[in-house]
Amino acid sequence: MEQTIRVELSTTKKEKPKTDQLEFGRTFTDHMFVMEYSDPLGWHNAEILPYQPLMVDPSSMIFHYGQSVFEGLKAYLTPDGDAQLFRPERNLQRLNRSNDRLCIPPIDEKFALKAIKQLVALEKDWIPSTEGTSLYIRPFIISTEPYLGVAPSRHYKFIVILSPVGAYYKEGINPVKIAVENQYVRAVVGGTGEAKTGGNYASSLKAQEVSAKEGYAQVLWLDGVEKKYIEEVGSMNVFFKINGEVVTPALNGSILEGVTRNSVIQLLKHWNIPVVERKISIDELHQAYKDGLLEEAFGAGTAAVISPIGQLTWNLEHLVINNGNTGELSKNIYDTLTNIQYGKEKDPFNWIEKVNEPVRVKR
Amino acid sequence: MEQTIRVELSTTKKEKPKTDQLEFGRTFTDHMFVMEYSDPLGWHNAEILPYQPLMVDPSSMIFHYGQSVFEGLKAYLTPDGDAQLFRPERNLQRLNRSNDRLCIPPIDEKFALKAIKQLVALEKDWIPSTEGTSLYIRPFIISTEPYLGVAPSRHYKFIVILSPVGAYYKEGINPVKIAVENQYVRAVVGGTGEAKTGGNYASSLKAQEVSAKEGYAQVLWLDGVEKKYIEEVGSMNVFFKINGEVVTPALNGSILEGVTRNSVIQLLKHWNIPVVERKISIDELHQAYKDGLLEEAFGAGTAAVISPIGQLTWNLEHLVINNGNTGELSKNIYDTLTNIQYGKEKDPFNWIEKVNEPVRVKR
Repeated sequence: MEQTIRVELSTTKKEKPKTDQLEFGRTFTDHMFVMEYSDPLGWHNAEILPYQPLMVDPSSMIFHYGQSVFEGLKAYLTPDGDAQLFRPERNLQRLNRSNDRLCIPPIDEKFALKAIKQLVALEKDWIPSTEGTSLYIRPFIISTEPYLGVAPSRHYKFIVILSPVGAYYKEGINPVKIAVENQYVRAVVGGTGEAKTGGNYASSLKAQEVSAKEGYAQVLWLDGVEKKYIEEVGSMNVFFKINGEVVTPALNGSILEGVTRNSVIQLLKHWNIPVVERKISIDELHQAYKDGLLEEAFGAGTAAVISPIGQLTWNLEHLVINNGNTGELSKNIYDTLTNIQYGKEKDPFNWIEKVNEPVRVKR
Repeated sequence: MEQTIRVELSTTKKEKPKTDQLEFGRTFTDHMFVMEYSDPLGWHNAEILPYQPLMVDPSSMIFHYGQSVFEGLKAYLTPDGDAQLFRPERNLQRLNRSNDRLCIPPIDEKFALKAIKQLVALEKDWIPSTEGTSLYIRPFIISTEPYLGVAPSRHYKFIVILSPVGAYYKEGINPVKIAVENQYVRAVVGGTGEAKTGGNYASSLKAQEVSAKEGYAQVLWLDGVEKKYIEEVGSMNVFFKINGEVVTPALNGSILEGVTRNSVIQLLKHWNIPVVERKISIDELHQAYKDGLLEEAFGAGTAAVISPIGQLTWNLEHLVINNGNTGELSKNIYDTLTNIQYGKEKDPFNWIEKVNEPVRVKR
């Protein structure tokens, strides 16, 4: 029996910010989706409501024990004026994998996708239309039981909020400087690294703050056990083109399985460009650089899509990649993915989900 | 210039639960302390308010990126009817160490202690008086900026709530069964293990859930790098009495520095019982057990004070410690610490802070 979504429309409409003044994650639309969980009812009471503050008891577990998960995806406006999503089913699958790791009850992925589409359709006017802009979709689950015992919560809220976001690259795709992180660790096998949970992001702030002061855009995370193998860059997955082959760290339990990561791999295979998921150490990368074989490096994630790495600093040595310029392959991947996302290019992968079509079941 | 605390008294009083029906962390008192932080004001607007839900924007960072820290301590009622705290300055020092790791601005420890004492004094009627009961004090800080960027928040709330709690041991101190955790990892050096932040507790839930199904009270955490060295038990520090010497894992960056842990060490030194902080592997412990030298084992933390370990299960082998009974030393430590906490025994360590005295500066 499928739940229905009760809709309460906002009586007022916020003023929409000018497209060229949009920042990431500061402006939110007029409505939000909220669904509650409690024992023994399960997930229930699905509603689209006016965007509003939550009333949360100060003893609610989310404030104390960090039991939370989230996702991030975008709605894009096509040249025809359609709203569309990029592989949303993968975000919802991952949300449920995160739920499992954090002892949060699973959601019905098909229903959640229906809810997201209904919310985005209602807020379609909020999707900005200029180059590179989009409507960021943030589904998240918080533990709301008013209880200080360390145990899985018995109450949750699943919430979806929407935020119009400006172009990530205001002046075209642009390489960044990255520092290899030697002190702090993002995640370790057996921990929560492959789950999209708040604690992973909280623990990353310190390294980010220190490296930002030194002029770096992000840090390159090494594994937490040997501090040797490359894991992620900032909050993105990472790829290296070495001697014609593209290498990305294999999923090992401490790396987040990015939707963009998976799309890059599929795209490269489609193009018959060699791509391999395997362990890669910082020493191996350094050797490849010294041998002149490190051709390109880039991060891959929903926010930037592709973020070229122009310089990698490790133990005070600056590895300048592709003369600090965006590589050809990086640019091609960026163009193709964004063209598919914005409906400017054919989607041979069945990645696009139109907002106004019924939910399809994809795996 | 010291801040003042504005006080708004509740117009209604909640009914106090019966002492024998008190659970941990489910009932809260009539008032709470709230202080806000924003750039560039710093910490400001300190208030004691009627206990009430917080109005929090759904985009607030606490719901997404887990930037939060907390503490836990207790107020005890003495036979003379005085309210007193146990080493509260150490909790506030640790809160600031946690703040530093999580990129949260530091609080004024002396002012925070004053606020806690004022709140506890106001709620003194809520401190239960029967054996083993107390008023649990939960200071915590949450990041409240409405922003989805991954960066330290620029707004925070520091909140203190109080909860009357029943006796941890309703029928006397009692040993528990513990399983050595082989799959999941609590923390790793370079991560957040020594900070009291939500994410550490969220990540521990899964192992706890799995082991509870198998009949264990808690898990014994091994280090995340070699899965070899003992770190903590559940959310407590751990001690072993081996051949007359007490051993506890040395603070290494991934272990929380417990106030009870520190007190146990001081007490043992006071008693001239050998105590050492060092690395101890599960193999060494197993060998000591086989050699008949593992005399006692116990967890140490604010909730239970001392939690004797009667059985430790590792790789399907059950190590039964002290015939599954509470050891003599464990019992002596428990009795002495709780007698000091409840004002039934002299405090030679200057650990007690009377609620009605001005804040003293202790380090």
